[in-house]
Amino acid sequence: MTGLFAGVFGHGGIEHQVDDGAWLRALLDAEAALARAQAACGLISAADAEAITRACVPGAVDAGAIGRAAADGGNPVIPLVKEVTRAVGGDAGRHVHTGATSQDIMDTAAMLVARRAGAVVLDHGAAATDALAELAADHRATLMAGRTLLQHALPVTFGLTAAGWLNGVGTALERLDAVLAEGAAVQLGGAAGTLASLGDDGPRVVAAFAAELGLAEPLLPWHTDRGRVADLAGALARVSGAAGKAAGDIVLLAQTEVAEVAEAGGAGVGGSSTLPHKRNPVAAVSALACAEQAPGLAATLLGAQVQQYQRAAGAWQSEWPALTHLLRVTGGAVAWLGTSLERLRVDPGRMRANLDLTGGFALAERVATDLAAELGRLPAHDLVREACAEASESRRGLPDVLAGRLTGRRTREEIAALLDPSGYLGRSAAFTDRAIHAHHTRTAHRR
Amino acid sequence: MTGLFAGVFGHGGIEHQVDDGAWLRALLDAEAALARAQAACGLISAADAEAITRACVPGAVDAGAIGRAAADGGNPVIPLVKEVTRAVGGDAGRHVHTGATSQDIMDTAAMLVARRAGAVVLDHGAAATDALAELAADHRATLMAGRTLLQHALPVTFGLTAAGWLNGVGTALERLDAVLAEGAAVQLGGAAGTLASLGDDGPRVVAAFAAELGLAEPLLPWHTDRGRVADLAGALARVSGAAGKAAGDIVLLAQTEVAEVAEAGGAGVGGSSTLPHKRNPVAAVSALACAEQAPGLAATLLGAQVQQYQRAAGAWQSEWPALTHLLRVTGGAVAWLGTSLERLRVDPGRMRANLDLTGGFALAERVATDLAAELGRLPAHDLVREACAEASESRRGLPDVLAGRLTGRRTREEIAALLDPSGYLGRSAAFTDRAIHAHHTRTAHRR
Amino acid sequence: MTGLFAGVFGHGGIEHQVDDGAWLRALLDAEAALARAQAACGLISAADAEAITRACVPGAVDAGAIGRAAADGGNPVIPLVKEVTRAVGGDAGRHVHTGATSQDIMDTAAMLVARRAGAVVLDHGAAATDALAELAADHRATLMAGRTLLQHALPVTFGLTAAGWLNGVGTALERLDAVLAEGAAVQLGGAAGTLASLGDDGPRVVAAFAAELGLAEPLLPWHTDRGRVADLAGALARVSGAAGKAAGDIVLLAQTEVAEVAEAGGAGVGGSSTLPHKRNPVAAVSALACAEQAPGLAATLLGAQVQQYQRAAGAWQSEWPALTHLLRVTGGAVAWLGTSLERLRVDPGRMRANLDLTGGFALAERVATDLAAELGRLPAHDLVREACAEASESRRGLPDVLAGRLTGRRTREEIAALLDPSGYLGRSAAFTDRAIHAHHTRTAHRR
Amino acid sequence: MTGLFAGVFGHGGIEHQVDDGAWLRALLDAEAALARAQAACGLISAADAEAITRACVPGAVDAGAIGRAAADGGNPVIPLVKEVTRAVGGDAGRHVHTGATSQDIMDTAAMLVARRAGAVVLDHGAAATDALAELAADHRATLMAGRTLLQHALPVTFGLTAAGWLNGVGTALERLDAVLAEGAAVQLGGAAGTLASLGDDGPRVVAAFAAELGLAEPLLPWHTDRGRVADLAGALARVSGAAGKAAGDIVLLAQTEVAEVAEAGGAGVGGSSTLPHKRNPVAAVSALACAEQAPGLAATLLGAQVQQYQRAAGAWQSEWPALTHLLRVTGGAVAWLGTSLERLRVDPGRMRANLDLTGGFALAERVATDLAAELGRLPAHDLVREACAEASESRRGLPDVLAGRLTGRRTREEIAALLDPSGYLGRSAAFTDRAIHAHHTRTAHRR
Repeated sequence: MTGLFAGVFGHGGIEHQVDDGAWLRALLDAEAALARAQAACGLISAADAEAITRACVPGAVDAGAIGRAAADGGNPVIPLVKEVTRAVGGDAGRHVHTGATSQDIMDTAAMLVARRAGAVVLDHGAAATDALAELAADHRATLMAGRTLLQHALPVTFGLTAAGWLNGVGTALERLDAVLAEGAAVQLGGAAGTLASLGDDGPRVVAAFAAELGLAEPLLPWHTDRGRVADLAGALARVSGAAGKAAGDIVLLAQTEVAEVAEAGGAGVGGSSTLPHKRNPVAAVSALACAEQAPGLAATLLGAQVQQYQRAAGAWQSEWPALTHLLRVTGGAVAWLGTSLERLRVDPGRMRANLDLTGGFALAERVATDLAAELGRLPAHDLVREACAEASESRRGLPDVLAGRLTGRRTREEIAALLDPSGYLGRSAAFTDRAIHAHHTRTAHRR
Repeated sequence: MTGLFAGVFGHGGIEHQVDDGAWLRALLDAEAALARAQAACGLISAADAEAITRACVPGAVDAGAIGRAAADGGNPVIPLVKEVTRAVGGDAGRHVHTGATSQDIMDTAAMLVARRAGAVVLDHGAAATDALAELAADHRATLMAGRTLLQHALPVTFGLTAAGWLNGVGTALERLDAVLAEGAAVQLGGAAGTLASLGDDGPRVVAAFAAELGLAEPLLPWHTDRGRVADLAGALARVSGAAGKAAGDIVLLAQTEVAEVAEAGGAGVGGSSTLPHKRNPVAAVSALACAEQAPGLAATLLGAQVQQYQRAAGAWQSEWPALTHLLRVTGGAVAWLGTSLERLRVDPGRMRANLDLTGGFALAERVATDLAAELGRLPAHDLVREACAEASESRRGLPDVLAGRLTGRRTREEIAALLDPSGYLGRSAAFTDRAIHAHHTRTAHRR
Repeated sequence: MTGLFAGVFGHGGIEHQVDDGAWLRALLDAEAALARAQAACGLISAADAEAITRACVPGAVDAGAIGRAAADGGNPVIPLVKEVTRAVGGDAGRHVHTGATSQDIMDTAAMLVARRAGAVVLDHGAAATDALAELAADHRATLMAGRTLLQHALPVTFGLTAAGWLNGVGTALERLDAVLAEGAAVQLGGAAGTLASLGDDGPRVVAAFAAELGLAEPLLPWHTDRGRVADLAGALARVSGAAGKAAGDIVLLAQTEVAEVAEAGGAGVGGSSTLPHKRNPVAAVSALACAEQAPGLAATLLGAQVQQYQRAAGAWQSEWPALTHLLRVTGGAVAWLGTSLERLRVDPGRMRANLDLTGGFALAERVATDLAAELGRLPAHDLVREACAEASESRRGLPDVLAGRLTGRRTREEIAALLDPSGYLGRSAAFTDRAIHAHHTRTAHRR
Repeated sequence: MTGLFAGVFGHGGIEHQVDDGAWLRALLDAEAALARAQAACGLISAADAEAITRACVPGAVDAGAIGRAAADGGNPVIPLVKEVTRAVGGDAGRHVHTGATSQDIMDTAAMLVARRAGAVVLDHGAAATDALAELAADHRATLMAGRTLLQHALPVTFGLTAAGWLNGVGTALERLDAVLAEGAAVQLGGAAGTLASLGDDGPRVVAAFAAELGLAEPLLPWHTDRGRVADLAGALARVSGAAGKAAGDIVLLAQTEVAEVAEAGGAGVGGSSTLPHKRNPVAAVSALACAEQAPGLAATLLGAQVQQYQRAAGAWQSEWPALTHLLRVTGGAVAWLGTSLERLRVDPGRMRANLDLTGGFALAERVATDLAAELGRLPAHDLVREACAEASESRRGLPDVLAGRLTGRRTREEIAALLDPSGYLGRSAAFTDRAIHAHHTRTAHRR
């Protein structure tokens, strides 16, 4: 996906952490770290480890050739080891890949790819949540219609809306961070997960291997215990979903008829090939396009947990493209959300105008609540619903209709006060502050 | 699913925590707790809260009637509130559902259902992991063939195999426990998530509501921030997958040709309608049947995260059957795994006999490793592969062929020692102990 | 799902074709038909077949008891056969289930359930597509904004929009009809698919069995060839998706700010538990809630195709709830779409008003096309895009801005004509007619 | 995926039909065909169409640059049109992309990619099914154990097993062929599906466009009616599943303990990086690895059907990688199955030996059926089950035990005859012939 679709789905640099080059880098890093780990345990000489490390650089092998040769054994590590062994040559060459099975290297590389791509996701996430926190703070008091089932319900603030996006994305990223920190472990078990060929030194080598790569040390080899991958799948799909939720709302708010926000791209951005006037919210749309691929990919990874015996026949291999593309689209979704927020123009006047469209309907609950104490909840609810229906059919204003129906109970002034949205925002401001505060706490924790 | 399929998929009592009765109980518990929370905050009288609580008992409403009426408004809470209000009657009736929107009650009930069903999953999981820990300990030294891609690879122990199942299921349950403890929160936001109708008292009511139900108190209403549901989906699918992995191995080990384990059911169990001799591993098969449904259901929940604005038009509702059935099949998978383990008969003699089938091939790596020091890794590997091929084609034993090829390098006795599987188990015992120890630590933490 | 959620997801009577009763009926119908098929082939007496048929009535067995007993053997047919055999008694009892394996009866019953539930889907589909055809005809000339990426693009007609829904749903139903007609076959292979216990009579019994049930006769037993189920999954998910597409558009068109359509439910329909003024498009929302569950369920069925050897260990059983619920939500989606269309109120005035919101922007392409001949496509496109930008920023009308930029090229009258949407509908009317005509052709074919 | 993973998942040349080059070729073919279609309708000159066609060759544009620029507008067509227009230059350049919107070109290209990749799938499928037909014919009488739930059930033939694979794969391919032939249509609707910018000529241009590309002519533009894509998803996932079923059985039959088949790869094929003796069934494993990715990808495509209004905001774009990779893994699955069949060595002796493992248990049903006439079905079933249990526990042979229990009813000779598997194959041969015959009929139809 280095070409035609990389701009759309591999947005924001995530592509470089999931493409062939990134995988090759990770595979070679794993082989090199394995050699150094053996040297650290005194199993091979430092010089040999260094020779192997020197050979494990991307330029040394050709992804295409490795990929083609991978078909013979069913994975790219077999030809990679041959290439590296040849490149190292001599005595040192004997120590390449010692004690490891192909899956040890592939799984370790997958975790490295996940960590590195995950770091890009988290960086874009940090930028996006910072932008959301600012948006929430700026619009703490900006009135807008709260919408349920896409119908006006009650007044809210745009600050609260942004705070909701912030909390959704922020907590999803926090979870991803934890999964990457705790779950991304090296794999080293040898052919059947017993580390038999390393004799008594096995566990020490595993520890050194993990230390070399900055990955976690697993309790057991996890060749067919795919909980780490399942967790990663869940955490990534959650991040995608949270980004997609925010992006989806932006697309809705940018509708021609709603027009409460717009993406102000520069020249050529958001244009259409045929419609000269269009200003499409391309960034938010692309975030959605990324996010919508995540659940199916996560399902593939979750389904791949049923792996046979010590090492699996098919399910394991099926993880590679699914995990790679899930990392890509999650990165894409978050990066595009960030881009959308950078471009975002908010129109508070239009928000207020839209809120006023229904002439007080959004305050109907408030009137009903106000009347419930004297009439009972259901009768009050019914009275107000009928008033709304009458106002709607007669095209008279709701204040008028209510004044008629509430003669002797409420004055016109009391009714006007009840129908003022700025007085019925509930905990909008407090919740907005909570979300911003939680964001700052998370940010402080992270570094 | 109270009928035809409940025995197969709702095994082990999970059905009773996810069926209509369980949902109704949870919905009524939520309404009652809301009333008591308001009383605790001084918003209504204790007597009214008590009256409401008394009315919120399963017998008071009819699931079928509620279900039919639910079609009008798109959710069961609307008719439920009507029924409960009528049942409470009088002054107290006015206070039913105050401050809440339908989704507040549905989401809170969903979290109660998840907690209660989750407790059943965890209980079955505790039994299954205890059984696995015992199995691992009992068979710490039982030799068996380690299999990769379903081919014999290296010797392992059945203890290590069971330890792998134990660690997979145990850590998956640990994660589910954490998600249920931290993630299962009450929902209370009112129509647009602002708690507007509760005035300044909103946050106190939320806290009391959470305390009444023993659920977490959320930072913000989470009407369209579905991270909690996504986490639950991921954690449940991970548990299903881990149980499925173990069950899948049991099914494979029980194959007629392998016969290393069998499920010894009582009369009528595992029988076939037409084949009188069959002893099917029905419990393990049923665990698989449950587990295989989880990824698709998780995908539905992960995909449902993109919910519009303050409350969604469709995606939210789509969660109900998916979450319900995901809880069911996860419970079923774990309970069936437990049942399979209860019935399990292990045949160490057959394990050893199968290991010997390949006449030393499983030790080929060991010979290659032993020779690598003098020949280099790849030449040693090649020499042994050729010896295996010759042994296989000539039908002479591998010891013989190796003796011929290694004349002057290894004696027949040395070759025999190299080909003794009990000397090439690597860290099998240590890893087994680690997994058992970790299980005991987790168990101690849990209670 | 006979209770709480049946009203929402099992809408329109589909519930009765997929619930326990429907499955039990199908299972008993299969056993009875098998007996009659054997009588037709002279293998048992007509009297015995009649006795068996008489016993195979729903009241004769208890779904709950069968369901519980199903756990022992892993499927409900084993206890069902015992019950039926006991109910028939005597000599005739010996002939119950002869020649069949459990899966023969389950699979045949599944196909019966699919046919019967499918008939309900098709009936609701016929009503919905008739309504759509009428809507398309009625609004053949009703102008509305065509929207791409949720932004106004070009004028279209509401007739064309409805025609698009019609064609999508209509062709999806046509495919489902074909799959049900050709793909729904009996299953009869005996324990290993050889029909061994029926001797030479096997194929004749299969043919008679198919004839009895009105199902197709398969070329081979299809115990582990699940193409039929995969096709059904694809066809059902396609129908759900097509219904969801139309429902999704209705939800969008019903937004408070768009308000081009509304669902006019009767009393209590579409109401909110807290918002007295709300008129939620509950039917369209419920259609979406159904449709969004289909892809995950289809994935489970598509994934269940990899079944082992002659009969599978888990994947087969996993089909039952997935197929059942997929039939339910597909029926629900189509029935809810029909309900939404029944309730639909269309507001052509609002459609026109919305179209005029952008003051001619929707005709920008037309102006660009008109100029392309003299300026070249890209320069014309650029000129118009800049004019739109200027009109938008200066808040002057597009006609004015264009008049200024096109002095000497186009008169104000020519510009006004270019900006008249009714003159730029392209093939809207012709396409609408095509879709209506195709619908009538399909309808005529069907009966 | 041109590199590391292409060998494993893009096996058999499918990679070249789904990679960037293939997409670029299809996009350029679509633009060129559109120009020629306009020339055919007299809208532009033949010379201009020729100039455009000459510019629409892969070398003319850079996939990477197009891909990067695609981010601005959210799809690659916008920058592609700019590049092509520049490349054509002059007067002819004005006519590039006339009347089309980006989606017209992308969707048409997607259908071309599907057709071309589909042709590779079908070709590999033809080879694989030919091989299966031969295998079925060759082993029409080769006895093997029929296995249900992975337990020996009844005798079957390997011919029948292969015939089952043949029928599964063959009918799935037939369906794919039909979907590609009927469903793969051009897309041409202009910005909102009205063909407005082409005036009255629109439908003629669509017809000519379809003729130029050999694709179907759609009734209506299908910008947001994704039934074609849904059908393709279903058909491809069905093919993947059918190939996966056969491959899964091969992996099982190749197990060390079963050893009824083996993949005889050449040097280096199926080897392990650490286990010199391994002969992994790499081709079948890789087919499974491909097939297991299909359901999740199909779910993404099925879920993407809910697209808004005239053109969608995200769901449409999400189709590109999902469809591309689904085509790849379906091609990979079928090609790998073919490779596995090429390499397959069948061991009839081992099949017979395995069948005899259970000492007649596989004939238990036959004995029960034979006795049913005199004892009744259930008592006969019980008698045989008990005899099997006794034989199993006492380690006496089943013939002995049965002789004891059937004294006076059956002689030892009769018992021996009943327990001879070659006499209890039912319709194995006839079904095998049916499948082979159907294959030849399908093949004849295809060309």
